[in-house]
Amino acid sequence: MNQDKLKEFEPIFYPRSIAVVGVSKDEQKWGTRFFRGLVNAGFKGKVYPVIPSDDKIEDFESYSNLKLIPGPVDHVIVSVPARFALQVLDDCTAKGVKVVDFFTAGFSETGEEQGCELEREMTQKAAKGGFRIIGPNCMGVYHPAYGKPWGGAYKQMGEPGTIGIISQSGGHGYWLVVNGFVRGIRFSKGVSFGNGCDLDSVDFFEYLAADPDTKIIGAYLEGMRDSRQLFEVIKELSNTKPVVVWKGGRTKGGAAAVASHTGSLAGSDTIWEAALKQAGAIMVHSHEEWVDTLLAFQDLTRFEGNRVSIISGLGGGGGGASVSATDAFIALGLDVPPFTDVTRTGLRNILPPVGSILRNPLDPGGIGGNLDIFKRMIELVITDPNIDLVILNDRLAALSESSRNWVNAISEILINFRKTQSKPIVIVSAPELAGAESREVEKTLSDAQIPVFPSLDRAAKALANIIRYWELVNIS
Amino acid sequence: MNQDKLKEFEPIFYPRSIAVVGVSKDEQKWGTRFFRGLVNAGFKGKVYPVIPSDDKIEDFESYSNLKLIPGPVDHVIVSVPARFALQVLDDCTAKGVKVVDFFTAGFSETGEEQGCELEREMTQKAAKGGFRIIGPNCMGVYHPAYGKPWGGAYKQMGEPGTIGIISQSGGHGYWLVVNGFVRGIRFSKGVSFGNGCDLDSVDFFEYLAADPDTKIIGAYLEGMRDSRQLFEVIKELSNTKPVVVWKGGRTKGGAAAVASHTGSLAGSDTIWEAALKQAGAIMVHSHEEWVDTLLAFQDLTRFEGNRVSIISGLGGGGGGASVSATDAFIALGLDVPPFTDVTRTGLRNILPPVGSILRNPLDPGGIGGNLDIFKRMIELVITDPNIDLVILNDRLAALSESSRNWVNAISEILINFRKTQSKPIVIVSAPELAGAESREVEKTLSDAQIPVFPSLDRAAKALANIIRYWELVNIS
Repeated sequence: MNQDKLKEFEPIFYPRSIAVVGVSKDEQKWGTRFFRGLVNAGFKGKVYPVIPSDDKIEDFESYSNLKLIPGPVDHVIVSVPARFALQVLDDCTAKGVKVVDFFTAGFSETGEEQGCELEREMTQKAAKGGFRIIGPNCMGVYHPAYGKPWGGAYKQMGEPGTIGIISQSGGHGYWLVVNGFVRGIRFSKGVSFGNGCDLDSVDFFEYLAADPDTKIIGAYLEGMRDSRQLFEVIKELSNTKPVVVWKGGRTKGGAAAVASHTGSLAGSDTIWEAALKQAGAIMVHSHEEWVDTLLAFQDLTRFEGNRVSIISGLGGGGGGASVSATDAFIALGLDVPPFTDVTRTGLRNILPPVGSILRNPLDPGGIGGNLDIFKRMIELVITDPNIDLVILNDRLAALSESSRNWVNAISEILINFRKTQSKPIVIVSAPELAGAESREVEKTLSDAQIPVFPSLDRAAKALANIIRYWELVNIS
Repeated sequence: MNQDKLKEFEPIFYPRSIAVVGVSKDEQKWGTRFFRGLVNAGFKGKVYPVIPSDDKIEDFESYSNLKLIPGPVDHVIVSVPARFALQVLDDCTAKGVKVVDFFTAGFSETGEEQGCELEREMTQKAAKGGFRIIGPNCMGVYHPAYGKPWGGAYKQMGEPGTIGIISQSGGHGYWLVVNGFVRGIRFSKGVSFGNGCDLDSVDFFEYLAADPDTKIIGAYLEGMRDSRQLFEVIKELSNTKPVVVWKGGRTKGGAAAVASHTGSLAGSDTIWEAALKQAGAIMVHSHEEWVDTLLAFQDLTRFEGNRVSIISGLGGGGGGASVSATDAFIALGLDVPPFTDVTRTGLRNILPPVGSILRNPLDPGGIGGNLDIFKRMIELVITDPNIDLVILNDRLAALSESSRNWVNAISEILINFRKTQSKPIVIVSAPELAGAESREVEKTLSDAQIPVFPSLDRAAKALANIIRYWELVNIS
């Protein structure tokens, strides 16, 4: 059955050709942006611009109607006013299209009967015409390995990876990818399905469950048509692929906004939260927690235990930071246990006695530029049998201002430890002074499976989330 | 009595001269850094380097002993090993010094009886010698208007302003100031007092209560000697000056780290939290919340009500952002009420019907570069009698990439609204793509009393904190 889904969704994620209906000479129009996005991103299939107006574009052969395109068209992106929707769908039927992706808004999310009725007619036309609909009111498909950006955002394409995205909101899906290329998160495939009049979250969960490129799923959901089905599919897949769900409309006001956004019924927050948790989903409550948790799942391979070691303030002044880090991690259920005597003795031999805290949390009291001591310190801590995970709590961005070489050397040592033993390493580095340079360092570290988080709270939340997941998987 | 405190603490915050004991030719040594920091920051009094070793520095006349300095010395900064502490204090007595600021560590925070005994002897010597001690194990005094940076950090001096800092941790105090100059937060005076063997948080609260330059107080505390006194002084002052307290050691592990850091007894978290809240303090639980809340107090003059309007996604794609923003603010107790009919009709006349959400939260559906519409939209929302505060939820950093002029124009319009009417304006702008340019925009906005927060959660927390404060002050 899973293999069927892969086959069925080929025109969605691997179309041989895409036609964009609603291109014009105005480069700011969404239809034009979708079209240019495909061309500039190097989309792997054919791309046809359909220009319903009298406009001409110079650099591409264009068509006034879908039906005039010479070759077969698998996939159509529609960006024309809602009143032309049914007519375009008739053309799609005539052309033998497999999937229609409706960017156009102005349907059930308006809350008016006319919009709802239009959506029902569209769904009927799709069933009769033998094609599926994504949307309306959505950004459609994202597939970096195949050259398909969100809309026209070919500059924000990101790198191919293991995270699949199911986002009812195009904006949230887009910003997840932007966060991704800034922080080294990589994506397999994504879909924003808006009102979801035909294909719904359940369909995409089923597809990503079967997709061999997808190892982790990040979902932003506002509502659903069939909750039982959704819980079933998540329950089945969450044992092998972590599912991180951010639910929009968890407050009464948020639920009202959901109705205006995608025409969805947000439902009771308590029921959603409980049912999805029971199905094995990791529930998150902000864009930041969503991004951070996905980054943690991507970079940290399966590990056991929740005993962290915290090292704060390589350049000195790590005392207060040690206290805060301990508070942040313990408050979220992680453990900060004492080192063994062997570790403590080892640390006493290499670190200055005054101004250091030779316990866990460890404040090395400004070992400064001494890379040899740094290396021996990390070795002692990471081999301690009381410790499952090592956290370096310092400001790489600020350090890089005065000494980029030093940050690079520190990174190299950490990357080497990451490669040669199994315990995860995590960095917490507040970005006050961050610029392009420090983002490069961050990406290099993430590429070597050392995630960097911008605050203690955010690191603690993400780690608590993935630790809970591995605990649940171990139990079941 | 308040005036007495101002007079008594003059040698701390307005010394006519500072001697730094422990300067050497090594520019990396802390004594040298303190000395160079004063000189480079343009300290307003005299500065004398005391070099106990055979080192020489070329550009300043130096002294081998404090007593050999020709003029009077109000304030001494000590950075020599702990074993020389008592000897230096004898010199201070002989010289008639008024305050000694001990950077040196290795006292009660070591947990060893020898260190505790040394501190007791130091306190006795101070009492007999007629001077006060700040520390040991601390960064001492920060006073930007007087040219006194934290340690050697004259490049991170920040601007004079209204926020006073009392931080038991030098690191946390320093990073608060760094956040300040990045985000437009300005400071009156600050002190890091470490182990607090003589002068303690209570003394500095009393001083800042009287200090006319200080309107808001941000405190990071790990422990205290006399809790009753502390609660009394905060209770008295919190009615006129907001007191934002971040307490380190709120977990058991954090409390153990506190003992190793400043030798303090962290005490029961529940008791601290309850007692300080009852005294009128605003309790925060992370560095981010501390910084954000202080920024909010600085930029937002007293206002009433908790009814916010949220505008998301000026460049389009604001649907999901509207939902998330509403969830974030309502979850923290703020209200997102409907607009009046007048506002709704006005918005319907200027915004596109399709792709917009013409309610609160407001999604203007990509009004793009139309500044006239932007201005009329803000005017409608800000004059709505249902609304106390306007939140613009968009990514200025990302926008600035493609169109800096546009961001500047938007900023100018907002700054003008801020000047010409009384309702606060707040911006939420995630910093994924932020660089030096977007930090400039952020600082300009904050200087015009429009604070910028990096996430919805952080904005919501800070606003909830200051709204709670004004509610309490209104009741009492």
